Amino acid sequence: MSGTSADGVDVALVQIKGRGIQCRLELLAHHHVPYLRKVRKHVLESMNAVASVAELSRLNFYLGELYADCVEEALQKSGFECELVGCHGQTIYHQGTAAPFLGRDIACTWQIGEGAVLASRLGVPVVSDFRPADMAAGGKGAPLVPYLDYVLFRHERLGRIVQNIGGIANLTAIPPGSGSEEVTAFDTGPGNMVIDAVAQKLFNRPFDSNGKLAAKGKPLANVTHDILKQPFFLQQPPRTAGREEFGREFLADFLRRCGKADKHDVIATATAVTALSIGQAVRRFVLYREGAKRGPAATFREFIVSGGGTKNQTLMSMLVTDLAELDLRLRTTDAIGIPSEAKEAVAFALLAYQTWHRTASNVPSATGAKRPAILGKISYA
Amino acid sequence: MSGTSADGVDVALVQIKGRGIQCRLELLAHHHVPYLRKVRKHVLESMNAVASVAELSRLNFYLGELYADCVEEALQKSGFECELVGCHGQTIYHQGTAAPFLGRDIACTWQIGEGAVLASRLGVPVVSDFRPADMAAGGKGAPLVPYLDYVLFRHERLGRIVQNIGGIANLTAIPPGSGSEEVTAFDTGPGNMVIDAVAQKLFNRPFDSNGKLAAKGKPLANVTHDILKQPFFLQQPPRTAGREEFGREFLADFLRRCGKADKHDVIATATAVTALSIGQAVRRFVLYREGAKRGPAATFREFIVSGGGTKNQTLMSMLVTDLAELDLRLRTTDAIGIPSEAKEAVAFALLAYQTWHRTASNVPSATGAKRPAILGKISYA
Repeated sequence: MSGTSADGVDVALVQIKGRGIQCRLELLAHHHVPYLRKVRKHVLESMNAVASVAELSRLNFYLGELYADCVEEALQKSGFECELVGCHGQTIYHQGTAAPFLGRDIACTWQIGEGAVLASRLGVPVVSDFRPADMAAGGKGAPLVPYLDYVLFRHERLGRIVQNIGGIANLTAIPPGSGSEEVTAFDTGPGNMVIDAVAQKLFNRPFDSNGKLAAKGKPLANVTHDILKQPFFLQQPPRTAGREEFGREFLADFLRRCGKADKHDVIATATAVTALSIGQAVRRFVLYREGAKRGPAATFREFIVSGGGTKNQTLMSMLVTDLAELDLRLRTTDAIGIPSEAKEAVAFALLAYQTWHRTASNVPSATGAKRPAILGKISYA
Repeated sequence: MSGTSADGVDVALVQIKGRGIQCRLELLAHHHVPYLRKVRKHVLESMNAVASVAELSRLNFYLGELYADCVEEALQKSGFECELVGCHGQTIYHQGTAAPFLGRDIACTWQIGEGAVLASRLGVPVVSDFRPADMAAGGKGAPLVPYLDYVLFRHERLGRIVQNIGGIANLTAIPPGSGSEEVTAFDTGPGNMVIDAVAQKLFNRPFDSNGKLAAKGKPLANVTHDILKQPFFLQQPPRTAGREEFGREFLADFLRRCGKADKHDVIATATAVTALSIGQAVRRFVLYREGAKRGPAATFREFIVSGGGTKNQTLMSMLVTDLAELDLRLRTTDAIGIPSEAKEAVAFALLAYQTWHRTASNVPSATGAKRPAILGKISYA
């Protein structure tokens, strides 16, 4: 897995047994390899509006080689062997909602990192390119991690909300004893993306380490309040967000709203927007909906958080405060065997496994797909 | 199949039985759909040096939809059903020889036309993206049609040279009673590409219909002679050619060499270069090599021609004249059940079938690959 932040590659070695949603997973090892600076530069350039066709093509094969190196390293370090590889690849472009193109409505997505190179180098089958099949079934091609959430966290009596805080923040809500078609999953809003951007712009730091910068400030309540009334935050799921929603333009507007406030207050506000957008989404689109459908909203008992955002203590404490009244027990996925950083990589190992067994693994209620789909393409060694 | 000339889509409905090289093929129907003008424009633009990343991504999904339409039409018209689809897609970029990129030697190739869209629309598995696996095995990713030639044309006692004249011209030489590792296959040089370009530039016609324009001229022998001494034509196989070798630059140099000659003589010269480059390749890289290895060159008895070039009577008559002394019987593939226009599409149906049965189908002696490779990626419906 390499995410939209393009910071590097995560390899998860996972042992999986059993079939379909009855399968059992164990994370054997996790290995992170940062992209070299020159590679990251090329990856980010490939996401520009226009790019060199030759370089895009080379980068696809180059990343295949690089990912193969990463898997080999992970295997050597851990002493395990592998039988199947799932490779999400690097997203170059994603447009989840169909738009007119040459007289048709076209949604599209594009991940690079050549599966045939991985298969040849590693000598095992490779499943790559997971998102197009969900899109071809009418979905937005994202989120795909809810399937892992469902397999790992569904519970007969405990309703669980699984919240990931990466660049973007997203949640998966699994009512007690539910089928996968009852799962709700959507992007709540920014994860670390806006906080990181403010840390870079105002403090010249890559991110707010442990939330220490935000801890010195006080959120501007009126700014937070106004932003949480913006259309994205009120939009019914399924919904997805990315740099389009919370990138450069959002940041410029946010800083304008903060005016001449102290820069610690500004980053505290960015942190509050992130925390409260999660709380608002939980209330509005999970508890309220669920309550309206099934009676008391108290069916959800646990709130399980993962992702880099869990390391931002200011963000986490704002979240705890906001959710206190909801009677949700807060846990991190680390506490149940999967470190936050490995979770997405584990998800694509699981999806590859299901595809190898010709089992559908999108969650249509999360992606908006009209039907289940077997995700990805198989390259044989 | 849609070729580098980007003129449209060929659908071949093929019945295949048996396993590996023992399989038997029958072409049930062939259906050609020209690209709409606006589609062709987009396809050609996507091959430019720089392109819009969003448009490339959309075009990939768009072509998936378009190819699905073409297959549906072919099925409806013919009344057949299909169980498996092989989709070559549209080549956007191809660099068969490795070149340095970010500190590695990278060869790469890129075909678009989203397999997941085809699988979803048609409800059957789809094999797409055939070339990368051969490249990952050290090959040039081309030519892939020699596998079909070998399956169709290998003969216990008759040595056969199978010559295709598309935009580029290529041949497959199959000694009598040989294994696939004894097959020689390579690009002989230009097919219709240079003739078409001259017809467009000097006559404002898309191509030289039936070779009538060339028939009115007389080839400039010194120009032909000099061009056939250029490095490409003397280069040992495996070798591949494309627009890089015989596109705009080649044309400019060719026209400069022709100077102020009558334009009918110029197109006759382009036709002669094409015909004689084939003859030279046959002598130098098939008969001579074979003769040196096995004794008399007389092991090759048949010369089987396919491709659009077979319709250019001037080209064909130059070829017949040039090959007359070699005691080769000239045939067209139409004479043995597969019309020239359908041949490449039939080839990718066969490759898809082999991949579905996890059988390697590159011809390493043709592509330069270090080992056999199972080609393509499988998308399930």
